[in-house]
Amino acid sequence: MIACFSDLFNVFPQLCTMKVLLSQQNYHIGNFNLNASKMIEVIKEAKLQSVDLVVFSELSVCGYPPRDFLEFDDFIKLVEETIAQIAAQTNGIGVLLGAPIKNGFEKGKPLFNAALLICDGKIQGTVHKTLLPNYDVFDEYRYFEPSFSWDIISFRGKRLAITICEDIWNIGDNPLYRVCPMDELIKLKPDMMINISASPFDYDHDIDRVEVIRQNVLKYKMPMIYCNAVGAQTEIVFDGGSLVVNQNGTIRHALKYFEEDRCLVETEELFNLDSGEPLQAPVAMDKDMRVAKANHPDQVIAYLTNQHNMDQVKQALILGIRDYFQKMGFTKAILGSSGGIDSALVLTLAVEALGRENVTAILMPSEFSTSHSVEDAKLLSENLGNPYHIIPIGMVYEQFIQTLDPLFSGTPFGIAEENIQSRTRGNLLMAIANKFGYVLLNTSNKSELATGYGTLYGDMAGGLSILGDLYKSQVFALAKYINAKREIIPAHIILKEPSAELRPNQKDSDSLPAYDILDRILYLYVERRKGPADIIACGFDESLVKKTLRMVNASEYKRNQFCPIIRVSTKAFGVGRRVPIVAKYLS
Amino acid sequence: MIACFSDLFNVFPQLCTMKVLLSQQNYHIGNFNLNASKMIEVIKEAKLQSVDLVVFSELSVCGYPPRDFLEFDDFIKLVEETIAQIAAQTNGIGVLLGAPIKNGFEKGKPLFNAALLICDGKIQGTVHKTLLPNYDVFDEYRYFEPSFSWDIISFRGKRLAITICEDIWNIGDNPLYRVCPMDELIKLKPDMMINISASPFDYDHDIDRVEVIRQNVLKYKMPMIYCNAVGAQTEIVFDGGSLVVNQNGTIRHALKYFEEDRCLVETEELFNLDSGEPLQAPVAMDKDMRVAKANHPDQVIAYLTNQHNMDQVKQALILGIRDYFQKMGFTKAILGSSGGIDSALVLTLAVEALGRENVTAILMPSEFSTSHSVEDAKLLSENLGNPYHIIPIGMVYEQFIQTLDPLFSGTPFGIAEENIQSRTRGNLLMAIANKFGYVLLNTSNKSELATGYGTLYGDMAGGLSILGDLYKSQVFALAKYINAKREIIPAHIILKEPSAELRPNQKDSDSLPAYDILDRILYLYVERRKGPADIIACGFDESLVKKTLRMVNASEYKRNQFCPIIRVSTKAFGVGRRVPIVAKYLS
Repeated sequence: MIACFSDLFNVFPQLCTMKVLLSQQNYHIGNFNLNASKMIEVIKEAKLQSVDLVVFSELSVCGYPPRDFLEFDDFIKLVEETIAQIAAQTNGIGVLLGAPIKNGFEKGKPLFNAALLICDGKIQGTVHKTLLPNYDVFDEYRYFEPSFSWDIISFRGKRLAITICEDIWNIGDNPLYRVCPMDELIKLKPDMMINISASPFDYDHDIDRVEVIRQNVLKYKMPMIYCNAVGAQTEIVFDGGSLVVNQNGTIRHALKYFEEDRCLVETEELFNLDSGEPLQAPVAMDKDMRVAKANHPDQVIAYLTNQHNMDQVKQALILGIRDYFQKMGFTKAILGSSGGIDSALVLTLAVEALGRENVTAILMPSEFSTSHSVEDAKLLSENLGNPYHIIPIGMVYEQFIQTLDPLFSGTPFGIAEENIQSRTRGNLLMAIANKFGYVLLNTSNKSELATGYGTLYGDMAGGLSILGDLYKSQVFALAKYINAKREIIPAHIILKEPSAELRPNQKDSDSLPAYDILDRILYLYVERRKGPADIIACGFDESLVKKTLRMVNASEYKRNQFCPIIRVSTKAFGVGRRVPIVAKYLS
Repeated sequence: MIACFSDLFNVFPQLCTMKVLLSQQNYHIGNFNLNASKMIEVIKEAKLQSVDLVVFSELSVCGYPPRDFLEFDDFIKLVEETIAQIAAQTNGIGVLLGAPIKNGFEKGKPLFNAALLICDGKIQGTVHKTLLPNYDVFDEYRYFEPSFSWDIISFRGKRLAITICEDIWNIGDNPLYRVCPMDELIKLKPDMMINISASPFDYDHDIDRVEVIRQNVLKYKMPMIYCNAVGAQTEIVFDGGSLVVNQNGTIRHALKYFEEDRCLVETEELFNLDSGEPLQAPVAMDKDMRVAKANHPDQVIAYLTNQHNMDQVKQALILGIRDYFQKMGFTKAILGSSGGIDSALVLTLAVEALGRENVTAILMPSEFSTSHSVEDAKLLSENLGNPYHIIPIGMVYEQFIQTLDPLFSGTPFGIAEENIQSRTRGNLLMAIANKFGYVLLNTSNKSELATGYGTLYGDMAGGLSILGDLYKSQVFALAKYINAKREIIPAHIILKEPSAELRPNQKDSDSLPAYDILDRILYLYVERRKGPADIIACGFDESLVKKTLRMVNASEYKRNQFCPIIRVSTKAFGVGRRVPIVAKYLS
């Protein structure tokens, strides 16, 4: 640390440097020992490098989002104990971390979402989050009181404007909020900004995030150190990508996406605008163009399946699978491998996430399975090198039909019989999973989930949905993306017509519109929240639109019982989309 | 309508009367035609009785809670059209109704939760809700901007202080809120209060509600007309019990619980304190005593099972079942009738809700079923007079075992085999439900759901959970309550030891603590959010407490895939309890 003369410094902040270690970590919700040891390990290393300040992400102490655990005093007590444990390691070093802390005022929600700057065992400064996201997957207003006063924190000669995640997402232009925290902080003449975040992935969100950070830097004419979380928490994937941006809006350091990373920052370099070549963040295309494309019905499929998205989605899904297993304490997965594209893609991703020896494919042909189904599924597992077993369902199915004969006798083959097959497969998979301690991976895609084209307790069974936030068009695109270097998924799986194979010669297209039309209607409805009139005005057939929306709204009861879906879009089914089950709207 | 001289009236409001029709109705979310026709029917009747003002409940136009439908412009457009349709019926009559309306200001969430006073086809006044509940099952801050200005609405000589639901739940003493809307309104010298609500049932909430209304009346020294919604919306039961309370805190009119009701109020009677004998609301016991009892570990079971609660819970469950079916467009239910107390109670309640001919019991014995199981289940259906069928699961189970033999050979009988039986039953029930268009009623109780003592896709299957918010102790108590007049549920079902009958001589007590201990620990943890240290300090065995809490937190992944649970407590599993699945807290 270099001593500063504060008067001089106020005029020339670049004369004085501070060494900051920006630490992007993957926390485990409620696992205080693990989170503390991760943070302490970095603090110890930082001391060896004479770091002034280590920066961790939002709610790093308990993991984000802790959800209703925050309602337990016991949980908050563990937070406080963990903060004390970390504070004990801060002799001679500053640590900025995130934690829920009690609201000491007479009024308001019981907690604040806080950033604490700790040094020499003491809390040197505390910041409360002002803008509390309460949309989509976020429920912060359920737990936290928003900040209503603002102050900078002075540390080692630097006047730090510290904010938490959403706080920088209103620089005066976000209609959701009446307050702009940085507008308050700038009045106190800070030197630089630090934002600690838990900002989740969706395709494009990396670009939006870089953009909002740049806008803050340009508006307030100050550098920003931005620390994001990384790692999957059930359905939500935090993608990292922490940034250090200098005073003129150039990215000086860009941390990795989808993995832990850290970097050392000398703050003087953030004011010295000539030092070296600026790093660039990944930018796929201009935001306005992206939004325009996404809103244009002819461009939806191209937008959903572009290469940038596919690359990011693939990494997000692999991290989502890997963290689910690691954090739940499982190593082995099982899935039904039908010879269709959905299960082929899940198997391929799971093998990459967990290792080939840890993913068992079960092939369960029936009398309605086409000959190529088993062959294609075998070839896939041979390509991937993962174990597989063939377990025909015919005998169990026949026994179900015989057992039900006293009630079913004389009725025609129909949905009930189709569902028995699907549920027999679900039952077999769960039995094997229970016997050997595996987790069943679900293979449903977003188009199926949206339309209710699936069997509860059958193909909708499983502990984690890998593709539930990818429309069928995206499933095809991702399979092709994965195959680009070498054919892992047999071409026939990608080329053949989708079928559930639950009755003779069945095709998805018997029940559903063609996927390139269906997926566009679904996207406009689910992601863009357009109503029937607007979608019809885009040029789609009226009866098809109405039928599709009716299918979506009438199958809410099925999705309600579905497992967590790794979220990759701005609107995934599950915790971020809350629709009444008993209702009559477009249904 | 009687003409008023406003000067005189301000001094003696009782000199001028207004005729109010208080209308407590059961709405269907998003079913605008139905909701409008219900309201218009009442308006037409009210005109015949020269009513001045008809009062409907919160969000009456679209039903409460509309949840993410509120994010669709199309939905809000339908709200606006429905308001216009109702407004066209208001010639010469005032109508106070609830609806989401657009936020016309530049900033803030896109909607207000509003009360509109409409007369002669025009909106005469609008009130925005100030206090937006955002806890438990409530998400109002997700959609609505809170009101930041307050005004009374003058109508036919009366100065009305109109508030919406939660607005009266802070009279200065609620730590959640910084604003007290009635404190603002009282400055404008209103004559009386009207509150429109959608306030859901939990046992005791009726008493709390009466209490809070009385406190408002006594604090502000004004009568209140309180209009609550009635009817079940998926898991949430609105219990009605609308009230008219005169200026000295005496209840003048109390509408029915759990059904639609209405009453005519001459406002002059609310100021004339001597008119007739005051009506009394149901009061079981003093609130402080109730809370103290509920917090005392020895009193928990007595509190949970008291007669007032059982009576209310029974009515809530029946309304919950009936509305689920009516609003989903189903008439017939099916369930597995095991001869155990849970399924016996569900069957009894469903028969009362839907009619004996509409509830089919399926008895599915296995080799592990005791001889009395089928006999008890048959006797129950004979008592109730509902159809039943016996479908043994042995042959299907054997075929599963044979089919899995290549993988399972040499492994001992265990959880996998137990679950196969349970899932075979689930599959049979769903097949019959699919074949004949029935809805499967789930029979799990809260003790099982809490501890994960159930099989996903097996006994956890179903479209609606009837007992999922009742601890096993409450299941016993409710069965006895129902049997009090005459033995409907065979005594042997209530007396025998609980068993899943999935292996020889299995008893629940092999895996779980005795229910009277278990339920107390669960109540203290789930409802009271006490941590392990606090629960142990209540005198429970340390290892038992830790084991129990571990079971609760480790089975979140199962509950996450469970169907909606009719909510009767202050903390039901499901939409009002949001806990991370991937986490390590007490697990």
